[in-house]
Amino acid sequence: MTNSLIVQKYGGTSVGTVERIEQVADRIVKTRKTNTNIVVVVSAMAGETDKLLKMARNLTKNPARREIDLLLSSGERISAALLTIALQARGIPALSMTGRQIGLQTDNTHTRARITNIDTKRAKIMLKKNHVIVVAGFQGINAEGDVTTLGRGGSDTSAVALAVALRAKQCEICTDVDGVYTADPRMVPQARRLDVVSYDEMLEMASLGAKVLQIRCVEFAHKYKMPLIVKSSFKEGDRGTLICEEDSNMEQPVVSGIICDKNQAKITLKEVPDQPGIAANIFEPLASASISVDMIIQNISEQGHTDMSFTLTREDLVEALVIMDKVAKKIHATQILSDAKIAKVSIVGAGMRSHSGVAAQIFKTLSANKINILMISTSEIKVSCIIEQKNSKLAVNALHDAFKMQDKPKNTKKKTTKK
Amino acid sequence: MTNSLIVQKYGGTSVGTVERIEQVADRIVKTRKTNTNIVVVVSAMAGETDKLLKMARNLTKNPARREIDLLLSSGERISAALLTIALQARGIPALSMTGRQIGLQTDNTHTRARITNIDTKRAKIMLKKNHVIVVAGFQGINAEGDVTTLGRGGSDTSAVALAVALRAKQCEICTDVDGVYTADPRMVPQARRLDVVSYDEMLEMASLGAKVLQIRCVEFAHKYKMPLIVKSSFKEGDRGTLICEEDSNMEQPVVSGIICDKNQAKITLKEVPDQPGIAANIFEPLASASISVDMIIQNISEQGHTDMSFTLTREDLVEALVIMDKVAKKIHATQILSDAKIAKVSIVGAGMRSHSGVAAQIFKTLSANKINILMISTSEIKVSCIIEQKNSKLAVNALHDAFKMQDKPKNTKKKTTKK
Repeated sequence: MTNSLIVQKYGGTSVGTVERIEQVADRIVKTRKTNTNIVVVVSAMAGETDKLLKMARNLTKNPARREIDLLLSSGERISAALLTIALQARGIPALSMTGRQIGLQTDNTHTRARITNIDTKRAKIMLKKNHVIVVAGFQGINAEGDVTTLGRGGSDTSAVALAVALRAKQCEICTDVDGVYTADPRMVPQARRLDVVSYDEMLEMASLGAKVLQIRCVEFAHKYKMPLIVKSSFKEGDRGTLICEEDSNMEQPVVSGIICDKNQAKITLKEVPDQPGIAANIFEPLASASISVDMIIQNISEQGHTDMSFTLTREDLVEALVIMDKVAKKIHATQILSDAKIAKVSIVGAGMRSHSGVAAQIFKTLSANKINILMISTSEIKVSCIIEQKNSKLAVNALHDAFKMQDKPKNTKKKTTKK
Repeated sequence: MTNSLIVQKYGGTSVGTVERIEQVADRIVKTRKTNTNIVVVVSAMAGETDKLLKMARNLTKNPARREIDLLLSSGERISAALLTIALQARGIPALSMTGRQIGLQTDNTHTRARITNIDTKRAKIMLKKNHVIVVAGFQGINAEGDVTTLGRGGSDTSAVALAVALRAKQCEICTDVDGVYTADPRMVPQARRLDVVSYDEMLEMASLGAKVLQIRCVEFAHKYKMPLIVKSSFKEGDRGTLICEEDSNMEQPVVSGIICDKNQAKITLKEVPDQPGIAANIFEPLASASISVDMIIQNISEQGHTDMSFTLTREDLVEALVIMDKVAKKIHATQILSDAKIAKVSIVGAGMRSHSGVAAQIFKTLSANKINILMISTSEIKVSCIIEQKNSKLAVNALHDAFKMQDKPKNTKKKTTKK
């Protein structure tokens, strides 16, 4: 490969103490023996961002987003300076760069800015001079020269965007887990780490609640076909999980992962008059309040009335109920029910595109374990079921077993055996 | 006065906690009732800079100055964002600005950069819009766009430089003391706060060890005739001490202040051959090691030999003795003596220019108290005596009494009564 540049991102836990920073520096020294060019992106030291936010919130409930951005961006600058110092102490030519210095330009949406451009001129000069560049993640500047931040998981996004702009070979997300698993190992002892996952699958998993990567970072990698690797910051020589374009030579299990999201709640409006425009009456006020609705089910109409159920994240439940109270009066629904003791269990697999029968297998497995399915939602590469929360561990383990996810699939050519 | 702009600087103790920041914000709200335009310069929260430096020094003994600048500059950015948030919470239109955003350009001398220019364009626009601008002190950027810091007392320097660039009416240094005193009140219970001090006097006091203001900040104010006020951050309505151009209508005592600096040490080389070039042989190696020598005394030559004594700050004593060991061999001095139990007591007063007899009064007073003078140094507006450290409190109080410094002088026209 002509370009040996890699971008490595280290999260807050990985740079959480001076000792950890030294370990990261040691690791970069080793990585440099095989890759001349390394750009490192760092998050704020673990706990730092929360500490700063807490101070701001002690001053006022709604601090201005522009000021929050200046406040929070300090955290990554501190990590970048410290890691650079640690590298220099090891004889490595290194240079810190802030979001502005690395040329990361964004729009004006403070606290969740979008990257508009990366001016890599200075970075390229320093890479040619054989320097390791340590970039303060999560931050950029807008056209006015004000500091902006990229929102949740922003340092991952910085890393991928820089990898794309600098045409890196790959972008490595070094973190406190060693890869992407078939299921949460704390819930499923038999969970297996995946060697490869496609962008599509990873996007589904991230949007279904897998914490390992933020959606935006995966979207960015997908858009520009940047190979993304999730690996442990401290296990040496470990390959981690590669997230890349789906390919016929790729490990191709039917299903890749199970995600269980307990942060769910359900609202049901009983006996809603079944008239055109009713759905808009219900969901527009929620959208105005920035409440995202996930699944929606409308029962079969009986005598001109129907029941409407929908799910949302649990934090939004109280606010949504207040809104529904008004809506119910307006549309003459007879009753509002809510349930926060539910979980969403989802199975994701690019193989579903070519294998039918996955949904049937899920329903059979849950049924055999006497687990009632409250709602179902499917897409091309996933099936999600809402179940009672008390059944979630049982459901996830039973499904993991049923799809033999603990077994490594053979590296087969893409099969098209439709059952 | 046509321009009602004032620049206020708050030190690290004044913004040391969220509660303190709220107090400062409350105070600015009140100040704004009489001054429409306010620019506030803040230091890092007390302890923050030391914490960051300690982390860097845990990584290596000699961290690169460029990285230290990025690291330390975070502290002031945090304070600026938090104070801005506190002001906004009080309904005041406010905006934080970093060193770069306020246009503070410096040379390339990391950790002790000099200001080269201030581009006030954006600040002026925001002031016209009636905003309080909260500036992160201590920092600027160099021509390459790298963050620089201004060294010790840098936020004071930022404040004065901004006051000059924005043609402010005055620059107020708000701190944990309420002004400049005739002597350190912890040492001299009768010490009196001065209403007015001239730039020249303040410069002497700062260089003699008065901690209240850094020399650079006073030099800057002096150069551009910017009235400087030292006042308490929290005593309301208090006038503090005004530092300004000497003027014939000004309060004109003979002496203004006594400074006692215990951080002194003395080295004596015995029986140095009295030849041309000997002084250079002694002091050049010290200068090369960046050791500043203060007073130098050469005794009267006897039989071609002389004793050389000089003083320096105590931190430099050990290193200086190592150097003197080599020098003594080279120039054939017979002995090296050192003494760290000394103090420098200095009396400063612009009135000395027109009043003779001050030195005589000092010597008489010390003699009456049986205090031996080891070395003497004078300038146009100060007299310094090196004495044994154990006598320092006695000396300072006796001199304070002798010159009636506790009494407020009458506001007389400049007298020229030479005695």
